[in-house]
Amino acid sequence: MRAAVLRDGHMAYRDDVPEPVPGPGQVLVAVRACGICGSDLHFASHGAEMLALTDRMAGDGAFGGLAVDLNRDVFMGHEFAAEVVEAGPDTDTYGPGTPVTSIPVLLSAKGAEPILSSNRTVGGYAERMLLSAPLLLPIPNGLDVKHAALTEPMAVGLHAVNKSNIAAGEAALVLGCGPIGIAIVAALRARGIETIVAVDFSPARRELARIMGAHETLDPQQGSPFDTTKQAVVFEAVGVPGIIDDVLLRARPGTRLIVAGVCMQADTVHPFFAIAKEINVQFVLAYTPDEFAASLHAIAEGDIDVTPVITGEVDLDGVGAAFDDLTDPDRHCKILVTP
Amino acid sequence: MRAAVLRDGHMAYRDDVPEPVPGPGQVLVAVRACGICGSDLHFASHGAEMLALTDRMAGDGAFGGLAVDLNRDVFMGHEFAAEVVEAGPDTDTYGPGTPVTSIPVLLSAKGAEPILSSNRTVGGYAERMLLSAPLLLPIPNGLDVKHAALTEPMAVGLHAVNKSNIAAGEAALVLGCGPIGIAIVAALRARGIETIVAVDFSPARRELARIMGAHETLDPQQGSPFDTTKQAVVFEAVGVPGIIDDVLLRARPGTRLIVAGVCMQADTVHPFFAIAKEINVQFVLAYTPDEFAASLHAIAEGDIDVTPVITGEVDLDGVGAAFDDLTDPDRHCKILVTP
Ligand SMILES: [Zn+2]
Ligand SMILES: [Zn+2]
Repeated sequence: MRAAVLRDGHMAYRDDVPEPVPGPGQVLVAVRACGICGSDLHFASHGAEMLALTDRMAGDGAFGGLAVDLNRDVFMGHEFAAEVVEAGPDTDTYGPGTPVTSIPVLLSAKGAEPILSSNRTVGGYAERMLLSAPLLLPIPNGLDVKHAALTEPMAVGLHAVNKSNIAAGEAALVLGCGPIGIAIVAALRARGIETIVAVDFSPARRELARIMGAHETLDPQQGSPFDTTKQAVVFEAVGVPGIIDDVLLRARPGTRLIVAGVCMQADTVHPFFAIAKEINVQFVLAYTPDEFAASLHAIAEGDIDVTPVITGEVDLDGVGAAFDDLTDPDRHCKILVTP
Repeated sequence: MRAAVLRDGHMAYRDDVPEPVPGPGQVLVAVRACGICGSDLHFASHGAEMLALTDRMAGDGAFGGLAVDLNRDVFMGHEFAAEVVEAGPDTDTYGPGTPVTSIPVLLSAKGAEPILSSNRTVGGYAERMLLSAPLLLPIPNGLDVKHAALTEPMAVGLHAVNKSNIAAGEAALVLGCGPIGIAIVAALRARGIETIVAVDFSPARRELARIMGAHETLDPQQGSPFDTTKQAVVFEAVGVPGIIDDVLLRARPGTRLIVAGVCMQADTVHPFFAIAKEINVQFVLAYTPDEFAASLHAIAEGDIDVTPVITGEVDLDGVGAAFDDLTDPDRHCKILVTP
């Protein structure tokens, strides 16, 4: 079958990938749409560093390793919506053609494996992939399967907002209006937060943040957002070195900082700034299965309209070019791969 | 009167400091004991850097500056217990000779000023100083005034434990058994936490931690404390660069890290470690007035016995030598200045 794979730091098109065969409890699905995630771009350009950091944690026993060999093709794609093709042996599931999505985890006799980056397990950048029958969520009637593919990135924003414990009446400052920042803005708006200030250098991203629910947008080149925004829960969705320290320096005493941007590099901070202001920093990643389901329903019920987020669509042979296009923040938010 | 002052990075003895004169709402007190704090040692050796960092925050408007001129004598000493001498004009207070303590804040017509490091306002390293009548706490009957001088550092530990929201059944890992770590151990024990593991390179400090309530002590040279201690609330009370990143690398997913050690230097961290494990970092400083009062009563009522913490006593002319002695972790925890 056809797929796009990571090879030597770039996405390559293949038409010779072996057809996945569902085992017990697994379901073969046909991918209808799969969003390209910033973390995939990161992995393509900084994969070795990312694996080394993960191994350092795993070596310490606190964390499982990923065991990906970058010298072989890597399958990626974790923001998928699909249709059921057939179930594995002794497996009950929805009928063929049923639109479904799932958290990106594949269950097998060996345990649970993330569908994220793997030499073995095919992800959403492919014609077909395996999912786990117990984890399947049917896409509610009438929801465009392309919109359902936004369930995963929107769940990331919902999780960040949940972990922030932001309360009614508190203001939110969202730094960075890439896909994660946009998902946070949407989740804040859906929760009824009445002051959402979104910050980005890119005019296009600021405009998208406004459409998705920000009450105010700021260009950091026009001055520090902390000068104009009073005490706020701060969401960091930029993920480059220096941002955290800048927040520690400029934020008000008692600030709660939610770090949702994935910074792979070592970063320099001044603990003294954070100590003097008793700042709380909550690092967040991913979401719970409940949050994933809630995200799907928020989209299906119209609480969050993801239409403006989808800025492009490519087939499997266009994934490589799409990865390149996504580096320009003024052109794209989310590109869907529609095999 | 006599006092010890910071001059050119060292503590100098003076016998010509003008007698403080209490204004309205203020009370002249005779210092009976004042603990030497690690933050004073920090300020003596890194004062310029500390002021520069504070000014950077103040320049940003988020934080008040300290406005200390290091080219002039600096008064310090914020862990004091004293006796009332006389009240200022139109000021009601306790009778002369009443033993008192107070949070280190001086109120005046100009506002509230911390009693921490000042070219003007005399601190606890002096024969007499000014306190604020509304903030005075009488030292409960029978409590040794030297023990009452431990109210402030013990309040720092209580505050860190309160901010951790540690619950019954959770284990606590305390990194560093200097005065802050010891205060955290004591507060954890007083709260009834049943697994307190304290870590320090120094055998003497580990022994003191055991006496003050640690159920187990570890020498980090014998291996990472994270290998032997399961999921725990981690208190960082070391305050040197590198410690935070080491915790982020080694701690279990979901760890709550309370940073109570004051690291003045820039520090390098890997946000990725913290993101992958969704670590929460709460930076803490000082305490509330309620926690200060609770700390005094915990000492007075015998919930915390501070006797083992006091490892030395000097007069005002011995403060300089005491600052030097405190750099050796095997010799001292808290030295009291008893003018
Ligand atoms: Zn993603
Ligand atoms: Zn102190």
